[in-house]
Amino acid sequence: MKSFAIHPVDQTIKPSILAKIDNLNKPKGSLGRLEELALQICLIQQTLEPSLAHPCHLLLGGDHGIEREGVSVSPREVTWQQMINFTHGGGGVNMFCRQHGFKLRIVDVGVDYDFTGIDGIINRKIARGTKNFLYEAAMTEAEFDRAIQIGCDLVDDCIAEGCRVLSIGEMGIANTSPSSIWMHLFTGVPLQECIGAGAGLDTPGIRHKYEVLSKALSNYQVTTPNQAPITPLAYFGGYEMVAAIGAMLKAAEKHLVILVDGFIMTACALAAIQLYSAAQDYMIFAHCGDESGHKRMLDAMGANALLHLGLRLGEGTGALCAFPIVDSAVRMMNEMNNFENANITKYF
Amino acid sequence: MKSFAIHPVDQTIKPSILAKIDNLNKPKGSLGRLEELALQICLIQQTLEPSLAHPCHLLLGGDHGIEREGVSVSPREVTWQQMINFTHGGGGVNMFCRQHGFKLRIVDVGVDYDFTGIDGIINRKIARGTKNFLYEAAMTEAEFDRAIQIGCDLVDDCIAEGCRVLSIGEMGIANTSPSSIWMHLFTGVPLQECIGAGAGLDTPGIRHKYEVLSKALSNYQVTTPNQAPITPLAYFGGYEMVAAIGAMLKAAEKHLVILVDGFIMTACALAAIQLYSAAQDYMIFAHCGDESGHKRMLDAMGANALLHLGLRLGEGTGALCAFPIVDSAVRMMNEMNNFENANITKYF
Repeated sequence: MKSFAIHPVDQTIKPSILAKIDNLNKPKGSLGRLEELALQICLIQQTLEPSLAHPCHLLLGGDHGIEREGVSVSPREVTWQQMINFTHGGGGVNMFCRQHGFKLRIVDVGVDYDFTGIDGIINRKIARGTKNFLYEAAMTEAEFDRAIQIGCDLVDDCIAEGCRVLSIGEMGIANTSPSSIWMHLFTGVPLQECIGAGAGLDTPGIRHKYEVLSKALSNYQVTTPNQAPITPLAYFGGYEMVAAIGAMLKAAEKHLVILVDGFIMTACALAAIQLYSAAQDYMIFAHCGDESGHKRMLDAMGANALLHLGLRLGEGTGALCAFPIVDSAVRMMNEMNNFENANITKYF
Repeated sequence: MKSFAIHPVDQTIKPSILAKIDNLNKPKGSLGRLEELALQICLIQQTLEPSLAHPCHLLLGGDHGIEREGVSVSPREVTWQQMINFTHGGGGVNMFCRQHGFKLRIVDVGVDYDFTGIDGIINRKIARGTKNFLYEAAMTEAEFDRAIQIGCDLVDDCIAEGCRVLSIGEMGIANTSPSSIWMHLFTGVPLQECIGAGAGLDTPGIRHKYEVLSKALSNYQVTTPNQAPITPLAYFGGYEMVAAIGAMLKAAEKHLVILVDGFIMTACALAAIQLYSAAQDYMIFAHCGDESGHKRMLDAMGANALLHLGLRLGEGTGALCAFPIVDSAVRMMNEMNNFENANITKYF
């Protein structure tokens, strides 16, 4: 895999940022999480006047071989159907992007459908879905590298437009399965506790999902020592998920603010942090859903999500939904008076 | 007090609303709280195509006699200084109103300052602050009625502009004190557990606040039987708080969506519900802060706030901060495709 120049944010400017925040015309600390966000964003951007110019949303689509094992309530065709729906503007992600002024890029990284002739989908297809990781690696290391590069290139395109804040979502039926396995491998939480209902499995469905993933894990552990070594990122990952990791790493390298969505994107963030721990400095965890294990995954990173609204749609809707709060933090830094220019008695 | 025609929302339309929500192109229930909000707003407005047109924010200011007892960390003068600051656009409330397109009305209901010659403050002054409820009623019943009417008239002005969603905030040093007493009286939670740090009291400060409020309560209980009966709303309330109650009741009567802010506005909502229980159908509880007792007050109403961001600035900033999420719920109803027009396999 290519390497990234990702460094922890430089803390030298921190006292100046805190002094500015504490002198705004409000009781100290009274804007709570907004003040924490403002500090983080100012550190990322190394400024007292942060900006969230040109927000961009990447909607990355890919299909998963493991879907063949019946681990998802939704059939595989929903991936391509929703991708086309997004081009018509009628999906959840479209609504949020319009509401918050995000430029949406819909990217086919590995959907099992031929989109030839359909406008509005960026073609970066690696293959028509990954292989079934119950029996073999989902992708080759070469495909993994290619997916990472796709994510990087997309972020470069955003930056060329002046983007300072990046949000990422996914469309890929069955992609809670690789997410659960990554969570298990990177946090040590027992696999059973990493598996939830996805988009709506019932209890027998969850049990079946556990059995499939458990078997896949043991197959991986048995077979890999006899083959060329392959990382769990390539073995279990989806093309859209690996592209998201690439995008996160490039965004961290370029000091963008990264809005991290729900369970699947949090698993990708966790994977990115395995590779470059400093990448977390650039991430804002937007929403903690009810998917079993999401909160434990956040806890494992010491992260505390902004919103708890029970969203489980995917597409990056949780990340987008939190954007106005992040925007409020930036506006606080740029628009609020301080005690002197507001002529207010500083009360402590 | 004048009477209001406040009725529970008509549930007849509910099956149609739920059918529309469940047929949007997403897994059932996957937009979580947004779906609950959409249902509530559609019930309030009795429509499948809700609107949050012309959002208005009332910033109601008033001073409190009880401030003389040292129950607040901030001095009384901060009330009028902040009111003037708001007219210059540099306060927290201004920033949020600009961000979310709210028309801001800054209203002096009872600030201890002469604003003559200052543009941008609507003069509805009843008196220069309430009386000190440690010794006597904060206001007369006639003043109470006047404050209720002021709130009603302000809402009528908003409605005349086409307003469908109302947010209310306050500026009044020491107004957590009457809020704590109302909470105690209307929920039965012991007074001590209704008292918090306000804008930043330390432990001895909180202890002193408790002693003052406890004495005020016992004085009230001793003296009122010998006088003409006076409600705790008038005895302890602030002019800005009673005006907020009037505004909430009028807004409920007129089927507006009401965004309820933090501890003080939640106490006003609680008071409004004491008068007309059906008013709660029209309220969205926007933010639960860290002020001791806020969550217990919400629990007493069976309410679950949208946001938990540690805000304690007042001014209605918590209500405004939650607006985009409420807006997302409305956009979901109006902008998302359903399974048929999106050509997507309905997966359950």
